[in-house]
Amino acid sequence: MAFDRLIQRIIELKNPTVVGLDPKLEYVPDYICEKYFKEEGTTLKAAANAIQEYNFALIDAIYDIVPAIKPQAAYYEMYGYEGVRVLYNTIQYAKEKGMFVMTDGKRNDIGATMEAYATAHLGRVAVNGIEFEPFGADALTVNGYLGTDGIKPLLNLCEKYDKGIFVLVKTSNPSSGELQDKKIGDDAVYAVMGDMCEEWGSSQIGKYGYSSVGAVVGATYPEQLIELRKRLPHTMFLVPGYGAQGGGAQGVAGAFDENGLGAIVNSSRAVMCAYKKEENCPETDFAQAARREVIRMREDIVSHINL
Amino acid sequence: MAFDRLIQRIIELKNPTVVGLDPKLEYVPDYICEKYFKEEGTTLKAAANAIQEYNFALIDAIYDIVPAIKPQAAYYEMYGYEGVRVLYNTIQYAKEKGMFVMTDGKRNDIGATMEAYATAHLGRVAVNGIEFEPFGADALTVNGYLGTDGIKPLLNLCEKYDKGIFVLVKTSNPSSGELQDKKIGDDAVYAVMGDMCEEWGSSQIGKYGYSSVGAVVGATYPEQLIELRKRLPHTMFLVPGYGAQGGGAQGVAGAFDENGLGAIVNSSRAVMCAYKKEENCPETDFAQAARREVIRMREDIVSHINL
Repeated sequence: MAFDRLIQRIIELKNPTVVGLDPKLEYVPDYICEKYFKEEGTTLKAAANAIQEYNFALIDAIYDIVPAIKPQAAYYEMYGYEGVRVLYNTIQYAKEKGMFVMTDGKRNDIGATMEAYATAHLGRVAVNGIEFEPFGADALTVNGYLGTDGIKPLLNLCEKYDKGIFVLVKTSNPSSGELQDKKIGDDAVYAVMGDMCEEWGSSQIGKYGYSSVGAVVGATYPEQLIELRKRLPHTMFLVPGYGAQGGGAQGVAGAFDENGLGAIVNSSRAVMCAYKKEENCPETDFAQAARREVIRMREDIVSHINL
Repeated sequence: MAFDRLIQRIIELKNPTVVGLDPKLEYVPDYICEKYFKEEGTTLKAAANAIQEYNFALIDAIYDIVPAIKPQAAYYEMYGYEGVRVLYNTIQYAKEKGMFVMTDGKRNDIGATMEAYATAHLGRVAVNGIEFEPFGADALTVNGYLGTDGIKPLLNLCEKYDKGIFVLVKTSNPSSGELQDKKIGDDAVYAVMGDMCEEWGSSQIGKYGYSSVGAVVGATYPEQLIELRKRLPHTMFLVPGYGAQGGGAQGVAGAFDENGLGAIVNSSRAVMCAYKKEENCPETDFAQAARREVIRMREDIVSHINL
């Protein structure tokens, strides 16, 4: 089970956090950008290559502290297919370093098309009898609005290739309640979606009690974290919104079970741009600043849970 | 307004249909695949280039009949970043031929990240002071589960760059009702989502009465098409599920207003693989078979509406 691998690594490193690699070019130190603009001109390719060097340096600086990275597909697509090439390279590099990779793509579609997304991000595609991993992540975030038809192709691939998914349940943004908090009978839409996650994962439960179907629940909604932790005992939570969006360590503690497991907390900008916040930090020290921030984050969160 | 451009073209060609370019390698005639495998070996790049030749030939054969194409991102991602390069090239080629391009990506995320998706697919990204169009489609399909935060960045870009979006409302798949048909008070979830589309589009209504915020409503649910057509007078419908999924022309007629406008019906596989269904059609005739199928489809649909 993919999440057994993730949880194993969380226990080894005593660190239930994941770093979101959401690289805007503005985050990349100037000296890196300038090098590529000089070599390759002002192009999307140069921008993408600058991002790649930045990502690789961040991974080098954190892989022995943090169990996982979560590259957000949007930021790579923003630099066109050259950016998407760097998404692929980043996934491969992090896996070589022993990290668990969750691609944040929030993909969703019906049957055959969802199968194509599942193949793209978690599976293998056959070309002339040879199989290739198009992106090769360990897990993918998905949107369950379309129902079981959109999830089933993923479940098959999770079983076959030892992968996992995280379904959007209660997202961290201020307007998430517009649909997600509305009541269907006595239950909120997010609770109905959460129940569907428990159901979808019920035949793939790993040795720590968590299935290969996880849920995204925002750090910015601590009450719902507690409610959903009780309601969804076999569903691993991916918790965005810590730090930059205002979710604190005390609030996210409710996402964890009594053993300090069952959740992984994401931080993106606070890690990637740590060098911009530290006083007198030269931009050449960006990776070490990121390392200091992931250590700070680990201590902050672990101090509130029973891991 | 982007949908004014689309509707203008629909009227000119008297054809409210769109061809989904969802290219699996299995759809591409063998003689094309073999050429690329011979030249470039068995690689994702060769597969992607074979798909590109196939796509370009299909576009050449249909652009004077059909107003729009809808490339489905999943099928390009399935061939890795080389596939995504072909998505870009396909969009550019179709636009050069005067077609309206809607990328079917069903993207969704919160604020800053949704901005990155919007920039990627509909906008322009700045690199060292120069602006690039990463993908440059005219419209994008999106998932509204996250609420207004996930839609607002798109509305800004739609206004700035003359683009449109289609939000998933009632999808064509059998299990779409698991969440979408559930009742929130007296209304189904899909109706609540539809109302949100009307609201999101209310400040960007074009000369034909339709806003830049459209809705995806499946051909497989003809009653909901009629219901939603009445309920959402300013919302253009993208209607998948005609043909292969079982939706008929009579059923989709309910998606249109009294002038035969307000909807565009998609067909993917039936067009792309027309040559496999026609009797005694050599595979070298695949593009002309697609042309015959889009003409058949146009006649079928136009005969049921008042365009």
